[in-house]
Amino acid sequence: MLHVLEPLIQMVSRLPGLGPRSARRIVLYLLKHKVDVLTPLLDSFEQVMKRLQICNKCFYLDVQNPCSICTDEKRDKKVLCIVEDIIDVWAIEKTRNFKGQYHILGGVLSAVEGKGPDELNFSSLKNRVQKDNYEEVIIALNSNVDGQTTMYYLMDQLKDLDVKISKPALGIPLGGELDYIDEGTINLAFSNRLKCNSEF
Amino acid sequence: MLHVLEPLIQMVSRLPGLGPRSARRIVLYLLKHKVDVLTPLLDSFEQVMKRLQICNKCFYLDVQNPCSICTDEKRDKKVLCIVEDIIDVWAIEKTRNFKGQYHILGGVLSAVEGKGPDELNFSSLKNRVQKDNYEEVIIALNSNVDGQTTMYYLMDQLKDLDVKISKPALGIPLGGELDYIDEGTINLAFSNRLKCNSEF
Repeated sequence: MLHVLEPLIQMVSRLPGLGPRSARRIVLYLLKHKVDVLTPLLDSFEQVMKRLQICNKCFYLDVQNPCSICTDEKRDKKVLCIVEDIIDVWAIEKTRNFKGQYHILGGVLSAVEGKGPDELNFSSLKNRVQKDNYEEVIIALNSNVDGQTTMYYLMDQLKDLDVKISKPALGIPLGGELDYIDEGTINLAFSNRLKCNSEF
Repeated sequence: MLHVLEPLIQMVSRLPGLGPRSARRIVLYLLKHKVDVLTPLLDSFEQVMKRLQICNKCFYLDVQNPCSICTDEKRDKKVLCIVEDIIDVWAIEKTRNFKGQYHILGGVLSAVEGKGPDELNFSSLKNRVQKDNYEEVIIALNSNVDGQTTMYYLMDQLKDLDVKISKPALGIPLGGELDYIDEGTINLAFSNRLKCNSEF
């Protein structure tokens, strides 16, 4: 390996989902395609970096503040969906089904990572729910330990406000095969089973 | 998804080994870590891009030309290893065992990709082998159809020169379990089986 490339490859290998081998391939590919790939990519990052800002209201990244979701008059102003990260907003928006507002926590409570309520966008959330008169808050956090801990914390924080609190259903995913699904999910799917006829 | 980020995410998703999902994660991670990750990474690419050049002799990428491998006086000047790509040089150098010279073809013959001998570093190879008086040429191309086709082409090109031609052994990899290895490799490993005692 070239000494001059090592720091660069190490930086790339620390990006999410990458490792040393994929980083080497990517760096080499980029350096071999200087004109047609690397330079446009660097320019694109520079430009985007200059234009993006964080929405004061929901903490989304956008070229405007408040963001395009918060200012979209066609969206439902009565439903607020709480998510961990911007990437979750993208995942939900891809469904083209949910048309309410978002609030991005910027993480979840985590003893391991030392993240407490002060590191997350909690205080602004409570203010927002009180002031903006939402009818429903959907807590759509990941279904892991930290996500669920944070959900219970949020439920406790919001319990005195006059707002419905909900969470997405848990169960077997579409196309999921029982043989490949963990026992916990199967148990949950059985205990939350849905009625299929009226005489159930 | 933000319209302003879409072109950037598409560019990143075209890098080797990445797809739309990993590209989204990487771009978001970089934009969230502007100061500590993105800016140093862009600077590092800019700097490396300015300094790197292609070696006239072996076609390696380096900050000097001829490269640090070609000019290393401690390396064997009598053995030349032909590889497809720079990434193969890195893989071989990691073994710290081979100490000869390299010649990087910059690809292999491929009917699908429309790559013929003129697109690869072939003519300079023949000149080099004639002029530099090598004792052995190791053709270390990937063990797939295009790699093997190119190897036979090279063997034909070099057959009139006074040089030994060899290739790495094919067989079961270290730690390989027979159950996980394809029939072709097992057949090959059996027909190239090695003597374990003198009375074989």
